[in-house]
Amino acid sequence: MNTAQLVDRVLAGETRAISRAITLLENEERAGGALFRDLFAHTGRAFVLGITGAPGSGKSTLVDGLIRILRESGRRVAVLAIDPTSPISGGAVLGDRIRMQAHAGDRGVYIRSMASRGRLGGLAAATSKAQHILDAAGYQVIMIETVGVGQSEVDIAAAADTTLVVMTPGLGDSIQTMKAGILEVADLFALNKADLDGAHRFARQLAASLEADPTSGWLPPIIETQATNGTGLPALWSAIERHQAFLLQTGGLEARRRNRLRTEIMEAVERQLRTNVLPSLTRGAAFSALLADVAARTLAPADAAQTVLGWLRDYPASDDTP
Amino acid sequence: MNTAQLVDRVLAGETRAISRAITLLENEERAGGALFRDLFAHTGRAFVLGITGAPGSGKSTLVDGLIRILRESGRRVAVLAIDPTSPISGGAVLGDRIRMQAHAGDRGVYIRSMASRGRLGGLAAATSKAQHILDAAGYQVIMIETVGVGQSEVDIAAAADTTLVVMTPGLGDSIQTMKAGILEVADLFALNKADLDGAHRFARQLAASLEADPTSGWLPPIIETQATNGTGLPALWSAIERHQAFLLQTGGLEARRRNRLRTEIMEAVERQLRTNVLPSLTRGAAFSALLADVAARTLAPADAAQTVLGWLRDYPASDDTP
Repeated sequence: MNTAQLVDRVLAGETRAISRAITLLENEERAGGALFRDLFAHTGRAFVLGITGAPGSGKSTLVDGLIRILRESGRRVAVLAIDPTSPISGGAVLGDRIRMQAHAGDRGVYIRSMASRGRLGGLAAATSKAQHILDAAGYQVIMIETVGVGQSEVDIAAAADTTLVVMTPGLGDSIQTMKAGILEVADLFALNKADLDGAHRFARQLAASLEADPTSGWLPPIIETQATNGTGLPALWSAIERHQAFLLQTGGLEARRRNRLRTEIMEAVERQLRTNVLPSLTRGAAFSALLADVAARTLAPADAAQTVLGWLRDYPASDDTP
Repeated sequence: MNTAQLVDRVLAGETRAISRAITLLENEERAGGALFRDLFAHTGRAFVLGITGAPGSGKSTLVDGLIRILRESGRRVAVLAIDPTSPISGGAVLGDRIRMQAHAGDRGVYIRSMASRGRLGGLAAATSKAQHILDAAGYQVIMIETVGVGQSEVDIAAAADTTLVVMTPGLGDSIQTMKAGILEVADLFALNKADLDGAHRFARQLAASLEADPTSGWLPPIIETQATNGTGLPALWSAIERHQAFLLQTGGLEARRRNRLRTEIMEAVERQLRTNVLPSLTRGAAFSALLADVAARTLAPADAAQTVLGWLRDYPASDDTP
């Protein structure tokens, strides 16, 4: 299958072509370049929902429940499940198979796990292109699901139109001990396992700790859910749609998407600098001489860096595309 | 105190001046620039020992034991304790005070905790300059101690002349489950808590899994220690000195240090690009026009990135120093 054929099949929404395209982009930056360029023209239509929460909060069950609701109204749904703790995707792929069985035979659902390769910022790099592919393939809703550890909840908020944080009473003992990052990125909260003791109290505490966004005026709502039996999920989806409508009305959606594209461009610039431009600058005799001066302590590293930056002006423009 | 005075006091080995210089570099990149440039000329003499291991392996006790041995022979010792799990250094500082008490009144010992601010690669950025300051201040041995989680053991090996990995029988259940990274970075192993059941068996398993470095021929030795009562620590220090001598003889020391300086220069280049050069490129009308084309899907992000890279050639050289 050549690139043009692959593009056509992705645009036709063929599951195997989509998987192949994502794998291509994951593994071969350059080979994926032309593919992605062709697909990118067909993007910009999907609604991207980021979902994060602590391990054990019931995220995956909740995502499955939302898929069911969306399928009832005929919408095509894709899920990118990001595992920021795993540098390899072996385990994640097994999880995929189990989860896919629940929607086996339904071509309107696509689930894919991606490992973020043990790098912070890896989430953004790995998912933004996959997200565009799923968008081009016509999925109307793309959910990006990740465990809220480290930096990942900030990354997911940057990648999504709307960010949902899933919590449970008892997992994080109190609002005070919660990570500040989680509170800041949430556009809305699902308080899952709402039948557990202390759920209402937790919801009240959480509500008391939230403030409306000073710029947009949005106050994140808290929806009580029981993902295992579906309770609260229709209300949760309605709240998600209300946030989407709010973003559309206020221009926030356009601003968020523009920021994402800005980040995507500048990450490509940094990647090019790191993988091609800067290594080429350090290969020559000039850099060896500079390094010898630094090793002899006659030149400070910061001054050597200034010299290298000056070389960037003379770096020949490349005909290659990233 | 102006920069020249601070430089003089650091060179005289005054503890308070050293702490102040490190804090300056941590907090104010620019203000620290001149200071660091003056101090850098006086570096290159200290032996840098990296120490990593799982939480609970007894690293800190072992480091204290090594300090005692070095102090008996009159050498000045500095310890940089890096906490890659903590984005703020509050807790670390408390730990410092407790640890410093053991060496209170001994001006030949300096202990400092640094948080690596939740960033991968943060270890290198944060410690390399602190390391130079301690080197300039005349500490003959600088130990960099960190918990072996995530990427940190690779970072510490890159920052050190010799890397010691501290293990205990039973913590990691078997050699097979050990992280590959830990084995690869070790120049030598301390098998601490060697009085525990299964210690000798663990040491044999570990020895069987090690291979001599294909380039240098060095085979990492395994030293059994009981840090709490000092057993094995003189033997451990001898092994560390043997590795140091080996590095000197084979030219490995010079190569490792040159690599560190290369990394330091290129990290300064990347930092400049990220904080000054690239933001200035994205501020203008030209970038806004580019972003509008990408948002309209008439231009792919990768092609926009190529255009931005082209602008680097026209970027005016700065008179500022990083």
